[in-house]
Amino acid sequence: MIPIISIVGKSDSGKTTLIEKLVPELISRGYRVATVKHDIHGFEVDQEGKDSWRHKQAGAHTVVISSPQKVALIRDVEQDLTLDEIREKLVQDVDLILSEGYKKDVQPKIEVFRKEKHKELMCGKEDNLVAIASNRAFDIGVPCVDLEDMKGLADFIEKEFLKSKGKGEISLRVDGRSIPLNPFVRGFLANAVKGMVRSLKHCENPRKIQIYIED
Amino acid sequence: MIPIISIVGKSDSGKTTLIEKLVPELISRGYRVATVKHDIHGFEVDQEGKDSWRHKQAGAHTVVISSPQKVALIRDVEQDLTLDEIREKLVQDVDLILSEGYKKDVQPKIEVFRKEKHKELMCGKEDNLVAIASNRAFDIGVPCVDLEDMKGLADFIEKEFLKSKGKGEISLRVDGRSIPLNPFVRGFLANAVKGMVRSLKHCENPRKIQIYIED
Repeated sequence: MIPIISIVGKSDSGKTTLIEKLVPELISRGYRVATVKHDIHGFEVDQEGKDSWRHKQAGAHTVVISSPQKVALIRDVEQDLTLDEIREKLVQDVDLILSEGYKKDVQPKIEVFRKEKHKELMCGKEDNLVAIASNRAFDIGVPCVDLEDMKGLADFIEKEFLKSKGKGEISLRVDGRSIPLNPFVRGFLANAVKGMVRSLKHCENPRKIQIYIED
Repeated sequence: MIPIISIVGKSDSGKTTLIEKLVPELISRGYRVATVKHDIHGFEVDQEGKDSWRHKQAGAHTVVISSPQKVALIRDVEQDLTLDEIREKLVQDVDLILSEGYKKDVQPKIEVFRKEKHKELMCGKEDNLVAIASNRAFDIGVPCVDLEDMKGLADFIEKEFLKSKGKGEISLRVDGRSIPLNPFVRGFLANAVKGMVRSLKHCENPRKIQIYIED
Protein backbone atom coordinates (compact mmCIF):
# COMPACT_ATOMS: atom_id res chain seq x y z
CA MET A 1 0.00 0.00 0.00
CA ILE A 2 1.19 3.51 -0.76
CA PRO A 3 2.24 5.24 2.49
CA ILE A 4 0.35 8.40 3.45
CA ILE A 5 1.75 11.29 5.52
CA SER A 6 -0.29 14.33 6.46
CA ILE A 7 1.44 17.69 6.69
CA VAL A 8 -0.57 19.43 9.38
CA GLY A 9 -0.25 22.68 11.28
CA LYS A 10 -2.23 25.64 12.52
CA SER A 11 -3.31 28.18 9.93
CA ASP A 12 -0.50 30.24 8.43
CA SER A 13 2.17 27.87 9.72
CA GLY A 14 3.42 27.25 6.17
CA LYS A 15 2.04 23.85 5.18
CA THR A 16 1.82 24.57 1.43
CA THR A 17 5.26 26.18 1.45
CA LEU A 18 6.75 23.14 3.18
CA ILE A 19 5.13 20.81 0.65
CA GLU A 20 6.47 22.98 -2.18
CA LYS A 21 10.00 22.48 -0.86
CA LEU A 22 9.66 18.86 0.25
CA VAL A 23 8.22 17.49 -3.00
CA PRO A 24 11.25 18.47 -5.17
CA GLU A 25 13.60 16.96 -2.57
CA LEU A 26 11.72 13.65 -2.69
CA ILE A 27 11.55 13.75 -6.50
CA SER A 28 15.32 14.28 -6.67
CA ARG A 29 15.65 10.98 -4.78
CA GLY A 30 13.62 9.19 -7.41
CA TYR A 31 10.23 9.04 -5.71
CA ARG A 32 6.88 9.89 -7.21
CA VAL A 33 4.65 11.91 -4.96
CA ALA A 34 0.91 12.55 -4.91
CA THR A 35 -0.55 15.38 -2.86
CA VAL A 36 -4.03 15.74 -1.45
CA LYS A 37 -5.64 19.05 -0.58
CA HIS A 38 -8.94 19.38 1.21
CA ASP A 39 -11.18 22.08 -0.21
CA ILE A 40 -14.15 22.64 2.01
CA HIS A 41 -15.55 25.41 -0.19
CA GLY A 42 -15.91 23.25 -3.28
CA PHE A 43 -14.02 24.07 -6.44
CA GLU A 44 -14.39 24.41 -10.17
CA VAL A 45 -12.01 22.38 -12.29
CA ASP A 46 -13.69 22.21 -15.66
CA GLN A 47 -14.66 24.89 -18.15
CA GLU A 48 -18.24 25.69 -19.01
CA GLY A 49 -19.23 24.55 -22.47
CA LYS A 50 -16.47 22.00 -22.94
CA ASP A 51 -17.57 18.48 -23.88
CA SER A 52 -16.45 17.07 -20.53
CA TRP A 53 -18.37 19.83 -18.76
CA ARG A 54 -21.48 18.90 -20.81
CA HIS A 55 -21.03 15.25 -19.76
CA LYS A 56 -20.97 16.24 -16.09
CA GLN A 57 -23.99 18.54 -16.52
CA ALA A 58 -25.85 15.62 -18.07
CA GLY A 59 -25.41 13.77 -14.79
CA ALA A 60 -22.27 11.67 -15.23
CA HIS A 61 -21.04 10.53 -11.80
CA THR A 62 -17.43 10.65 -12.98
CA VAL A 63 -15.82 12.51 -15.86
CA VAL A 64 -12.34 11.73 -17.11
CA ILE A 65 -10.40 14.02 -19.46
CA SER A 66 -7.43 12.24 -20.94
CA SER A 67 -4.48 13.66 -22.87
CA PRO A 68 -1.06 12.27 -23.76
CA GLN A 69 0.58 14.25 -20.92
CA LYS A 70 -1.97 14.25 -18.14
CA VAL A 71 -5.33 12.94 -17.07
CA ALA A 72 -7.97 14.68 -15.00
CA LEU A 73 -10.91 13.13 -13.22
CA ILE A 74 -13.86 14.73 -11.47
CA ARG A 75 -16.23 12.53 -9.53
CA ASP A 76 -19.13 12.88 -7.15
CA VAL A 77 -18.85 11.69 -3.59
CA GLU A 78 -21.53 11.35 -0.95
CA GLN A 79 -19.28 12.63 1.83
CA ASP A 80 -15.67 13.59 2.39
CA LEU A 81 -13.41 10.72 1.46
CA THR A 82 -10.87 9.62 4.04
CA LEU A 83 -7.25 9.50 2.95
CA ASP A 84 -7.48 5.70 2.90
CA GLU A 85 -10.44 5.95 0.50
CA ILE A 86 -8.59 8.44 -1.69
CA ARG A 87 -5.66 6.02 -1.88
CA GLU A 88 -7.97 3.08 -2.60
CA LYS A 89 -10.21 4.75 -5.17
CA LEU A 90 -7.99 7.23 -6.94
CA VAL A 91 -4.24 7.22 -6.50
CA GLN A 92 -1.92 4.83 -8.29
CA ASP A 93 1.63 4.74 -9.61
CA VAL A 94 3.19 6.86 -6.85
CA ASP A 95 5.50 6.03 -3.95
CA LEU A 96 4.07 8.41 -1.37
CA ILE A 97 0.92 10.44 -0.71
CA LEU A 98 1.36 13.75 1.13
CA SER A 99 -1.80 15.39 2.30
CA GLU A 100 -2.07 19.01 3.33
CA GLY A 101 -4.19 19.10 6.44
CA TYR A 102 -6.40 16.16 7.40
CA LYS A 103 -5.59 16.55 11.08
CA LYS A 104 -8.56 14.36 12.05
CA ASP A 105 -7.63 11.48 9.74
CA VAL A 106 -5.84 8.49 11.25
CA GLN A 107 -2.76 8.71 9.01
CA PRO A 108 0.72 9.61 10.35
CA LYS A 109 1.31 13.34 10.66
CA ILE A 110 4.17 15.80 10.45
CA GLU A 111 3.34 19.12 12.09
CA VAL A 112 4.71 22.36 10.72
CA PHE A 113 5.40 24.85 13.50
CA ARG A 114 6.68 28.41 13.29
CA LYS A 115 7.47 30.04 16.61
CA GLU A 116 6.65 33.55 15.32
CA LYS A 117 3.10 32.45 14.57
CA HIS A 118 1.99 30.14 17.35
CA LYS A 119 2.76 29.18 20.91
CA GLU A 120 1.77 25.53 21.01
CA LEU A 121 1.69 22.48 18.83
CA MET A 122 -1.64 21.40 17.40
CA CYS A 123 -1.00 17.64 17.57
CA GLY A 124 0.45 15.17 20.04
CA LYS A 125 1.51 11.56 19.82
CA GLU A 126 -2.12 10.55 20.36
CA ASP A 127 -2.88 12.10 16.94
CA ASN A 128 -0.28 9.84 15.30
CA LEU A 129 2.22 12.68 15.16
CA VAL A 130 5.47 11.17 13.85
CA ALA A 131 7.66 14.27 13.42
CA ILE A 132 7.76 18.04 13.76
CA ALA A 133 9.20 20.53 11.26
CA SER A 134 9.87 23.63 13.30
CA ASN A 135 12.17 26.59 13.89
CA ARG A 136 12.33 25.77 17.61
CA ALA A 137 13.08 22.52 19.39
CA PHE A 138 10.42 20.30 20.97
CA ASP A 139 11.09 17.41 23.28
CA ILE A 140 7.91 15.36 23.13
CA GLY A 141 9.33 12.05 21.96
CA VAL A 142 9.08 12.49 18.20
CA PRO A 143 11.86 13.69 15.88
CA CYS A 144 12.03 17.44 15.40
CA VAL A 145 13.55 18.64 12.13
CA ASP A 146 14.49 22.23 11.28
CA LEU A 147 11.86 23.94 9.17
CA GLU A 148 14.37 24.66 6.41
CA ASP A 149 16.06 21.25 6.50
CA MET A 150 14.30 19.46 3.65
CA LYS A 151 17.12 16.94 3.38
CA GLY A 152 16.64 15.98 7.02
CA LEU A 153 12.88 15.73 6.59
CA ALA A 154 13.19 13.65 3.43
CA ASP A 155 15.74 11.41 5.19
CA PHE A 156 13.20 10.80 7.95
CA ILE A 157 10.37 10.06 5.49
CA GLU A 158 12.58 7.81 3.41
CA LYS A 159 13.77 5.83 6.40
CA GLU A 160 10.40 5.44 8.09
CA PHE A 161 7.99 5.18 5.15
CA LEU A 162 9.75 4.43 1.88
CA LYS A 163 12.63 2.07 2.56
CA SER A 164 10.31 -0.72 3.65
CA LYS A 165 9.04 -0.96 0.06
CA GLY A 166 11.25 -3.91 -0.74
CA LYS A 167 9.78 -6.11 1.97
CA GLY A 168 6.82 -7.37 -0.01
CA GLU A 169 3.25 -6.83 0.99
CA ILE A 170 -0.24 -8.19 0.79
CA SER A 171 -3.48 -6.34 1.30
CA LEU A 172 -6.96 -7.78 1.47
CA ARG A 173 -10.21 -5.88 1.16
CA VAL A 174 -13.56 -7.54 1.67
CA ASP A 175 -16.65 -5.56 0.67
CA GLY A 176 -14.56 -2.42 0.62
CA ARG A 177 -13.09 -2.81 4.12
CA SER A 178 -9.38 -3.31 4.71
CA ILE A 179 -8.92 -6.60 6.61
CA PRO A 180 -6.04 -6.71 9.11
CA LEU A 181 -3.93 -9.84 8.66
CA ASN A 182 -1.55 -11.34 11.18
CA PRO A 183 1.85 -12.55 9.93
CA PHE A 184 0.74 -16.18 9.69
CA VAL A 185 -2.34 -15.36 7.60
CA ARG A 186 -0.35 -12.92 5.44
CA GLY A 187 2.17 -15.58 4.59
CA PHE A 188 -0.43 -18.29 4.10
CA LEU A 189 -2.67 -16.23 1.85
CA ALA A 190 0.20 -14.74 -0.17
CA ASN A 191 1.86 -18.09 -0.75
CA ALA A 192 -1.38 -19.88 -1.62
CA VAL A 193 -2.37 -17.22 -4.17
CA LYS A 194 1.14 -17.00 -5.62
CA GLY A 195 1.23 -20.78 -5.91
CA MET A 196 -2.00 -20.83 -7.90
CA VAL A 197 -1.05 -17.89 -10.11
CA ARG A 198 2.40 -19.35 -10.88
CA SER A 199 0.75 -22.42 -12.38
CA LEU A 200 -0.86 -20.23 -15.08
CA LYS A 201 0.78 -19.69 -18.44
CA HIS A 202 3.06 -16.62 -18.65
CA CYS A 203 2.68 -16.02 -14.90
CA GLU A 204 5.64 -18.07 -13.74
CA ASN A 205 7.35 -15.22 -11.95
CA PRO A 206 4.76 -12.72 -10.72
CA ARG A 207 5.93 -9.64 -8.86
CA LYS A 208 2.56 -7.96 -8.45
CA ILE A 209 -0.76 -9.83 -8.28
CA GLN A 210 -4.17 -8.20 -8.17
CA ILE A 211 -7.30 -10.30 -7.79
CA TYR A 212 -10.83 -8.99 -7.83
CA ILE A 213 -13.75 -11.27 -7.08
CA GLU A 214 -17.37 -10.21 -6.99
CA ASP A 215 -20.29 -12.48 -6.28
CA MET B 1 -15.08 -5.28 -14.33
CA ILE B 2 -16.95 -2.11 -15.28
CA PRO B 3 -18.14 -2.38 -18.90
CA ILE B 4 -16.85 0.24 -21.35
CA ILE B 5 -18.68 1.47 -24.47
CA SER B 6 -17.20 4.02 -26.85
CA ILE B 7 -19.55 6.46 -28.57
CA VAL B 8 -17.76 7.06 -31.87
CA GLY B 9 -18.62 8.88 -35.08
CA LYS B 10 -17.17 11.21 -37.64
CA SER B 11 -16.74 14.84 -36.65
CA ASP B 12 -19.96 16.77 -36.19
CA SER B 13 -22.07 13.61 -36.04
CA GLY B 14 -23.36 14.52 -32.58
CA LYS B 15 -21.40 12.35 -30.16
CA THR B 16 -21.52 14.79 -27.24
CA THR B 17 -25.21 15.49 -27.85
CA LEU B 18 -25.98 11.77 -27.84
CA ILE B 19 -24.07 11.30 -24.58
CA GLU B 20 -25.95 14.26 -23.08
CA LYS B 21 -29.24 12.50 -23.83
CA LEU B 22 -28.15 8.93 -23.08
CA VAL B 23 -26.66 9.60 -19.65
CA PRO B 24 -29.92 10.88 -18.06
CA GLU B 25 -31.81 7.89 -19.51
CA LEU B 26 -29.30 5.48 -17.92
CA ILE B 27 -29.36 7.41 -14.63
CA SER B 28 -33.17 7.21 -14.56
CA ARG B 29 -32.76 3.43 -14.62
CA GLY B 30 -30.57 3.54 -11.54
CA TYR B 31 -27.13 3.26 -13.14
CA ARG B 32 -24.09 5.35 -12.38
CA VAL B 33 -22.18 6.43 -15.43
CA ALA B 34 -18.63 7.67 -15.96
CA THR B 35 -17.65 9.41 -19.18
CA VAL B 36 -14.23 9.72 -20.76
CA LYS B 37 -13.25 12.46 -23.19
CA HIS B 38 -9.99 12.53 -25.08
CA ASP B 39 -8.40 15.95 -25.23
CA ILE B 40 -5.47 15.94 -27.58
CA HIS B 41 -4.76 19.63 -27.05
CA GLY B 42 -4.15 19.34 -23.33
CA PHE B 43 -6.31 21.19 -20.84
CA GLU B 44 -6.20 23.31 -17.74
CA VAL B 45 -8.24 22.12 -14.82
CA ASP B 46 -6.74 23.92 -11.88
CA GLN B 47 -6.43 27.57 -10.99
CA GLU B 48 -3.10 29.36 -10.80
CA GLY B 49 -2.08 30.25 -7.27
CA LYS B 50 -4.31 27.73 -5.50
CA ASP B 51 -2.60 25.38 -3.05
CA SER B 52 -3.27 22.37 -5.27
CA TRP B 53 -1.82 24.26 -8.25
CA ARG B 54 1.28 25.03 -6.16
CA HIS B 55 1.61 21.31 -5.31
CA LYS B 56 1.53 20.41 -9.00
CA GLN B 57 4.02 23.16 -9.87
CA ALA B 58 6.36 21.75 -7.22
CA GLY B 59 6.42 18.52 -9.19
CA ALA B 60 3.74 16.32 -7.65
CA HIS B 61 2.93 13.47 -10.03
CA THR B 62 -0.71 13.45 -8.88
CA VAL B 63 -2.78 16.11 -7.16
CA VAL B 64 -6.10 15.37 -5.51
CA ILE B 65 -8.56 18.08 -4.44
CA SER B 66 -11.20 16.68 -2.13
CA SER B 67 -14.46 18.24 -0.98
CA PRO B 68 -17.60 16.81 0.64
CA GLN B 69 -19.44 16.82 -2.73
CA LYS B 70 -16.80 15.98 -5.31
CA VAL B 71 -13.20 15.02 -5.77
CA ALA B 72 -10.85 16.04 -8.55
CA LEU B 73 -7.57 14.43 -9.52
CA ILE B 74 -4.91 15.54 -11.97
CA ARG B 75 -2.06 13.18 -12.74
CA ASP B 76 0.83 12.92 -15.14
CA VAL B 77 0.96 10.14 -17.68
CA GLU B 78 3.78 9.09 -19.96
CA GLN B 79 1.48 8.44 -22.90
CA ASP B 80 -2.22 8.30 -23.68
CA LEU B 81 -3.93 5.84 -21.36
CA THR B 82 -6.07 3.19 -22.98
CA LEU B 83 -9.66 2.89 -21.79
CA ASP B 84 -8.69 -0.30 -19.96
CA GLU B 85 -5.96 1.62 -18.11
CA ILE B 86 -8.37 4.45 -17.28
CA ARG B 87 -10.78 1.89 -15.81
CA GLU B 88 -7.99 0.17 -13.90
CA LYS B 89 -6.24 3.26 -12.55
CA LEU B 90 -8.99 5.80 -12.07
CA VAL B 91 -12.63 4.86 -12.27
CA GLN B 92 -14.54 3.22 -9.44
CA ASP B 93 -18.09 3.09 -8.07
CA VAL B 94 -19.88 3.30 -11.43
CA ASP B 95 -21.83 0.74 -13.48
CA LEU B 96 -20.74 1.84 -16.94
CA ILE B 97 -18.01 3.85 -18.64
CA LEU B 98 -18.99 5.74 -21.81
CA SER B 99 -16.14 7.20 -23.78
CA GLU B 100 -16.54 9.87 -26.42
CA GLY B 101 -14.33 8.87 -29.32
CA TYR B 102 -11.54 6.33 -28.83
CA LYS B 103 -12.21 4.74 -32.22
CA LYS B 104 -8.83 2.98 -32.16
CA ASP B 105 -9.30 1.44 -28.73
CA VAL B 106 -10.40 -2.20 -28.52
CA GLN B 107 -13.58 -1.54 -26.53
CA PRO B 108 -17.10 -2.08 -27.96
CA LYS B 109 -18.36 0.87 -29.99
CA ILE B 110 -21.66 2.52 -30.85
CA GLU B 111 -21.39 4.74 -33.91
CA VAL B 112 -23.44 7.92 -34.18
CA PHE B 113 -24.46 8.58 -37.78
CA ARG B 114 -26.40 11.50 -39.23
CA LYS B 115 -27.31 11.15 -42.90
CA GLU B 116 -27.26 14.94 -43.48
CA LYS B 117 -23.61 15.03 -42.47
CA HIS B 118 -21.92 11.94 -43.86
CA LYS B 119 -22.30 9.26 -46.48
CA GLU B 120 -20.61 6.28 -44.87
CA LEU B 121 -20.07 4.73 -41.50
CA MET B 122 -16.68 5.13 -39.89
CA CYS B 123 -16.58 1.70 -38.21
CA GLY B 124 -17.40 -1.87 -39.13
CA LYS B 125 -17.75 -5.06 -37.16
CA GLU B 126 -13.96 -5.49 -37.34
CA ASP B 127 -13.70 -2.39 -35.11
CA ASN B 128 -15.89 -4.04 -32.46
CA LEU B 129 -18.91 -2.02 -33.56
CA VAL B 130 -21.87 -3.32 -31.55
CA ALA B 131 -24.63 -0.89 -32.54
CA ILE B 132 -25.44 2.17 -34.64
CA ALA B 133 -27.45 5.21 -33.57
CA SER B 134 -28.60 6.76 -36.82
CA ASN B 135 -31.39 8.57 -38.64
CA ARG B 136 -31.22 6.07 -41.50
CA ALA B 137 -31.20 2.29 -41.46
CA PHE B 138 -28.10 0.14 -41.92
CA ASP B 139 -28.07 -3.58 -42.54
CA ILE B 140 -24.58 -4.63 -41.57
CA GLY B 141 -25.38 -7.19 -38.91
CA VAL B 142 -25.43 -4.96 -35.84
CA PRO B 143 -28.49 -3.37 -34.21
CA CYS B 144 -29.43 0.04 -35.61
CA VAL B 145 -31.32 2.34 -33.23
CA ASP B 146 -32.96 5.63 -34.15
CA LEU B 147 -30.83 8.62 -33.24
CA GLU B 148 -33.57 10.07 -31.04
CA ASP B 149 -34.55 6.78 -29.39
CA MET B 150 -32.63 6.94 -26.14
CA LYS B 151 -34.94 4.37 -24.54
CA GLY B 152 -34.09 1.90 -27.32
CA LEU B 153 -30.39 2.61 -27.00
CA ALA B 154 -30.45 2.28 -23.22
CA ASP B 155 -32.42 -0.99 -23.57
CA PHE B 156 -29.68 -2.34 -25.82
CA ILE B 157 -26.90 -1.25 -23.45
CA GLU B 158 -28.74 -2.60 -20.44
CA LYS B 159 -29.37 -5.97 -22.06
CA GLU B 160 -25.90 -6.46 -23.52
CA PHE B 161 -23.65 -4.81 -20.94
CA LEU B 162 -25.39 -4.22 -17.64
CA LYS B 163 -27.69 -7.13 -16.93
CA SER B 164 -24.84 -9.61 -16.67
CA LYS B 165 -23.70 -7.85 -13.51
CA GLY B 166 -25.28 -10.43 -11.27
CA LYS B 167 -23.27 -13.33 -12.68
CA GLY B 168 -20.24 -12.88 -10.48
CA GLU B 169 -16.81 -12.21 -11.79
CA ILE B 170 -13.14 -12.62 -11.14
CA SER B 171 -10.30 -10.67 -12.63
CA LEU B 172 -6.60 -11.32 -12.27
CA ARG B 173 -3.79 -8.93 -13.07
CA VAL B 174 -0.16 -9.98 -12.88
CA ASP B 175 2.45 -7.23 -13.10
CA GLY B 176 -0.19 -4.91 -14.50
CA ARG B 177 -1.38 -7.21 -17.30
CA SER B 178 -4.90 -8.61 -17.39
CA ILE B 179 -4.63 -12.43 -17.42
CA PRO B 180 -7.32 -14.29 -19.39
CA LEU B 181 -8.81 -17.16 -17.39
CA ASN B 182 -10.74 -20.11 -18.73
CA PRO B 183 -13.90 -21.17 -16.88
CA PHE B 184 -12.13 -23.95 -14.96
CA VAL B 185 -9.37 -21.66 -13.70
CA ARG B 186 -11.89 -18.89 -12.91
CA GLY B 187 -13.89 -21.22 -10.74
CA PHE B 188 -10.87 -22.83 -9.12
CA LEU B 189 -9.16 -19.54 -8.26
CA ALA B 190 -12.38 -17.83 -7.09
CA ASN B 191 -13.40 -20.74 -4.87
CA ALA B 192 -9.92 -21.23 -3.41
CA VAL B 193 -9.59 -17.54 -2.53
CA LYS B 194 -13.14 -17.30 -1.20
CA GLY B 195 -12.53 -20.41 0.91
CA MET B 196 -9.44 -18.88 2.50
CA VAL B 197 -11.03 -15.48 3.06
CA ARG B 198 -14.18 -16.97 4.62
CA SER B 199 -12.06 -18.55 7.33
CA LEU B 200 -11.02 -15.09 8.54
CA LYS B 201 -12.91 -13.31 11.31
CA HIS B 202 -15.73 -11.01 10.09
CA CYS B 203 -15.30 -12.26 6.52
CA GLU B 204 -17.75 -15.13 6.64
CA ASN B 205 -19.89 -13.88 3.77
CA PRO B 206 -17.75 -11.88 1.37
CA ARG B 207 -19.39 -10.36 -1.71
CA LYS B 208 -16.39 -8.49 -3.03
CA ILE B 209 -12.78 -9.54 -2.44
CA GLN B 210 -9.72 -7.57 -3.50
CA ILE B 211 -6.24 -8.94 -2.96
CA TYR B 212 -3.04 -7.13 -3.74
CA ILE B 213 0.30 -8.90 -3.44
CA GLU B 214 3.65 -7.32 -4.21
CA ASP B 215 6.97 -9.09 -3.87
